[in-house]
Amino acid sequence: MKYNNSPIGIFDSGLGGLTVFKEVRKILPYEDLIYFGDTARVPYGNKSKETILRYSMEISKFLISKGVKIVVAACNTSSSLALDGLRKEESVPIFGVIEPGAKKAVEVSSGGNIAVIGTSATIKSRAYSRVIYEEINVLKGNGGYKFKNDFKVIEKACPLLVPFVEEGFLNEEITKKIINYYLNPVICEKPSCLVLGCTHYPILKDLILEEVGQDMQIIDSGIETAKAVKCFLEKNGMLKDGATKGSELFFVSDDLEKFKELGERFLGRKIENVSIVNQFL
Amino acid sequence: MKYNNSPIGIFDSGLGGLTVFKEVRKILPYEDLIYFGDTARVPYGNKSKETILRYSMEISKFLISKGVKIVVAACNTSSSLALDGLRKEESVPIFGVIEPGAKKAVEVSSGGNIAVIGTSATIKSRAYSRVIYEEINVLKGNGGYKFKNDFKVIEKACPLLVPFVEEGFLNEEITKKIINYYLNPVICEKPSCLVLGCTHYPILKDLILEEVGQDMQIIDSGIETAKAVKCFLEKNGMLKDGATKGSELFFVSDDLEKFKELGERFLGRKIENVSIVNQFL
Repeated sequence: MKYNNSPIGIFDSGLGGLTVFKEVRKILPYEDLIYFGDTARVPYGNKSKETILRYSMEISKFLISKGVKIVVAACNTSSSLALDGLRKEESVPIFGVIEPGAKKAVEVSSGGNIAVIGTSATIKSRAYSRVIYEEINVLKGNGGYKFKNDFKVIEKACPLLVPFVEEGFLNEEITKKIINYYLNPVICEKPSCLVLGCTHYPILKDLILEEVGQDMQIIDSGIETAKAVKCFLEKNGMLKDGATKGSELFFVSDDLEKFKELGERFLGRKIENVSIVNQFL
Repeated sequence: MKYNNSPIGIFDSGLGGLTVFKEVRKILPYEDLIYFGDTARVPYGNKSKETILRYSMEISKFLISKGVKIVVAACNTSSSLALDGLRKEESVPIFGVIEPGAKKAVEVSSGGNIAVIGTSATIKSRAYSRVIYEEINVLKGNGGYKFKNDFKVIEKACPLLVPFVEEGFLNEEITKKIINYYLNPVICEKPSCLVLGCTHYPILKDLILEEVGQDMQIIDSGIETAKAVKCFLEKNGMLKDGATKGSELFFVSDDLEKFKELGERFLGRKIENVSIVNQFL
């Protein structure tokens, strides 16, 4: 059996990608992981495509210089706007979080409306709709799921949720209000499932469930992405050999202490081995 | 009489500095103004001192390359953390927004407690307290105002207000809630005046007054800074000659359209002559 002991690179605009990191660690305990959080330039969600592509490329090159075997853009905004650019430019396989989440949504929706929430940039890109409709067409071609004629993808930008999470407003009355403000019009469209189209949102999952009802199917693209990564590494003989438990390295572009403190809430455990990198930014 | 027809440079992390720009324009109608909004890296308020200094220097150098006679850091975060560094490095006079606001607060407070609200970085820097206590000492030396023995400066970080303003949430119920959340503990300390220690906050002035009471004295550091700039130019023979009305140029590091759209709400009129600059960022 073939192995590849190089690390996996994972990046995000800030803390959000840690929700993906956590899921990758859960199902790939032997892999070495390198995380980059662009805390000097967070948030990405209100920035233009050109800027997001430029930032994503700088970070991918940094991760590749550290010897990673694949790069996971653990950021929906980057995945929506920079993935094609990254795949064209970079020498290792690049994974995004949109495709796995969108496919899972089609799978569980049973033909009902699909709701997607994300940053302004992600929603404006319509990346989720595109993948969802492509996937539905494939299924139709295979005689699979039947979608209603009036089927629709309800896409809703929730630009303030990232700042709320990054500021650690995780369980305040005011956080419930803003979730209600954003999600109330979404619920009115009676979606069959809700895709958390931003890696920050799983941190708010309990509050979101309170708002949309406990029986709503929630798609966490972090979980789906971790599965896709595992599947790819297995198929291509690229898993680590499993002789030792996976190591972890974290890099941020700013404010190491805040990253450690808030990051703990994301990972559910202490974060060690964090360094600041800013020479290339 | 001496004149200097070079433009005035004004910068901020994003849109907020436009409130200062507006006040400068109001009292200096003949000056040519160049504005830079760092919309690719907004907000600054949750970033480290080193990063804020680096960003502020890049922008000052850009403005100086455009021939400005002075630079106004129309951003409280920059003024708190980068002013000394900028003054050491740059070849033109540098103005901040802290000192004018702090001095005005001491002037109007009649010895009562002074409240200051701002971003996390501004509040953490304690820049307002420092200037306020210095000013009080000067006054004491001159036998001026008497301050109570239990006089204090109440400093409160309101990190989510900048994202609210930048997202255009200017008159929503939820904006009132977040203002109440932040300001309620401040009011309990019975301040004699409230300094808006962030150039974004004047946009929320009406909602803030609703919360703190219409008779609260509000210090808008934009207005005070504009006065200080005018006074300096007059004293040093650096005013423009007044032959023609002042021109205006705007530069942003990202998303020109959003800047134009939201900027209009800040200036109360259309913004023309906006260009994107990103080569040096």
